[in-house]
Amino acid sequence: AKKQAASATTIFGKRGMSLEEELNESNQYYLAKEIAVVHKKPTPIQIVKVDYPQRSQAVIKEAYFKRPSTTDYNGVYHGHYIDFDAKETKSKTSFPLHNFHEHQVKHMDECLKQGGICFALIRFVVLDRIFVYPASNLITFWRAQMTGGRKSIPLDAVVADGVEINYQLNPLIPYLDGVDELIARTQQGGN
Amino acid sequence: AKKQAASATTIFGKRGMSLEEELNESNQYYLAKEIAVVHKKPTPIQIVKVDYPQRSQAVIKEAYFKRPSTTDYNGVYHGHYIDFDAKETKSKTSFPLHNFHEHQVKHMDECLKQGGICFALIRFVVLDRIFVYPASNLITFWRAQMTGGRKSIPLDAVVADGVEINYQLNPLIPYLDGVDELIARTQQGGN
Ligand SMILES: [Mg+2]
Ligand SMILES: [Mg+2]
Repeated sequence: AKKQAASATTIFGKRGMSLEEELNESNQYYLAKEIAVVHKKPTPIQIVKVDYPQRSQAVIKEAYFKRPSTTDYNGVYHGHYIDFDAKETKSKTSFPLHNFHEHQVKHMDECLKQGGICFALIRFVVLDRIFVYPASNLITFWRAQMTGGRKSIPLDAVVADGVEINYQLNPLIPYLDGVDELIARTQQGGN
Repeated sequence: AKKQAASATTIFGKRGMSLEEELNESNQYYLAKEIAVVHKKPTPIQIVKVDYPQRSQAVIKEAYFKRPSTTDYNGVYHGHYIDFDAKETKSKTSFPLHNFHEHQVKHMDECLKQGGICFALIRFVVLDRIFVYPASNLITFWRAQMTGGRKSIPLDAVVADGVEINYQLNPLIPYLDGVDELIARTQQGGN
C-alpha cells in the first residue's frame, strides 16, 4: 500500500503544495460537488495598529499572531458537525503529541461531547502516509502522557485505530472516506 | 414585551458591550455549561510583511482585511451543526439586505443543504429587539431582491418567521432557545 500511495502522490499530489493547500483544494472539491461544507478558519491575529489612508483600504501596521483556541477546520457533512486539525510529522515511527496544544485537545473533547465527528488528519511526511485518527484515541494518549505515559502515538496505534487515506485525483485527499468510517463506528456505539 | 426587554437590557446587557462581545460571553457560558461549542471565527487577514526580530515574537508589519468567505459563527449543539451571522440595524421598520454579502448567503444555503441549522441573529438597535431569523427565509428575500423585490426584510416578516430572544442574566443572549425552535420546525418538515 505504501508504494502505491507514493506513486499516486507523484502523479496527483506534491505539486509543490503544502498539506494545508491540498486540504483547501479537497474542501473546494467537496463544496463544489455539494458533498460537504468545510473551511479552514483564518489565523487569529491580535491587531494593534491600523492606518486608514484616504481613498484607499485600511492597512494593518502592527499585529501579532495569537494562539488559536480551537482546531483549524470545521464544517458540516450530511448533517454531521465535522471538526479536525491537520498535522505533519517527519518521524517514521510515531506521532509526537507536542504537535497539539492543550486547548486544541480540550476543544475536540468538547465537540465530541456535543456529538461532533472530531479527528486529527495526520501525515507522516517521510512515509508518505495520511490517516484520519479519531479524537477519542488522541485524547486517551494525551491524558496518559500527563500521568507519565509516552509522549507520542506509535505508528502501529495510528494504523490500528485510524483510517488510512490515499491520494487520488479529485479530491486530492479524500478524507471524508475516513469520516464515513468514524460515523459508522459512532453508530455502532464506539467512537 | 418591548418594554420588558428594554429594562432587562438596562440591567444585564449594554454594559458598554458590542453585540459581538455579548455573543462571545453567551458562547462562553454555553461552553462552560457543556451546552454547545460555538466560536466566532477570526477576521481573515491577508498578511504581506512579517518581521522576525531576534528573541521576540513575530510582528506583522503590513496586512489587509479580507472579505470573509463564510459567516462569523459556527459550532456544534446537541449533534447539530450551527452556523450564523450577527447583524445590527438602526432601522425601526425593516432589516436592510445590504448587511449581507452574496457569498455569506451562498454559504448559508450550502450549509442548509448539508443539514445544518443556519440563521441570522438580527438586532434592531433602536427597538432593542433581537431575533433568530432562519436562513431559509433570508435566502428567499435575498433572491427576490435580485429579481426586483424589496431591498429589506420588513420587521413584520422578521417577527412572523423569526424567534424573538430576550436578554437574560446567563447567557446574556440565549439564542439557543431560538435554535431549538428552528430544529423543531425542521423536524416537522419545514425549515
Ligand atoms: Mg493547525
Ligand atoms: Mg459579521
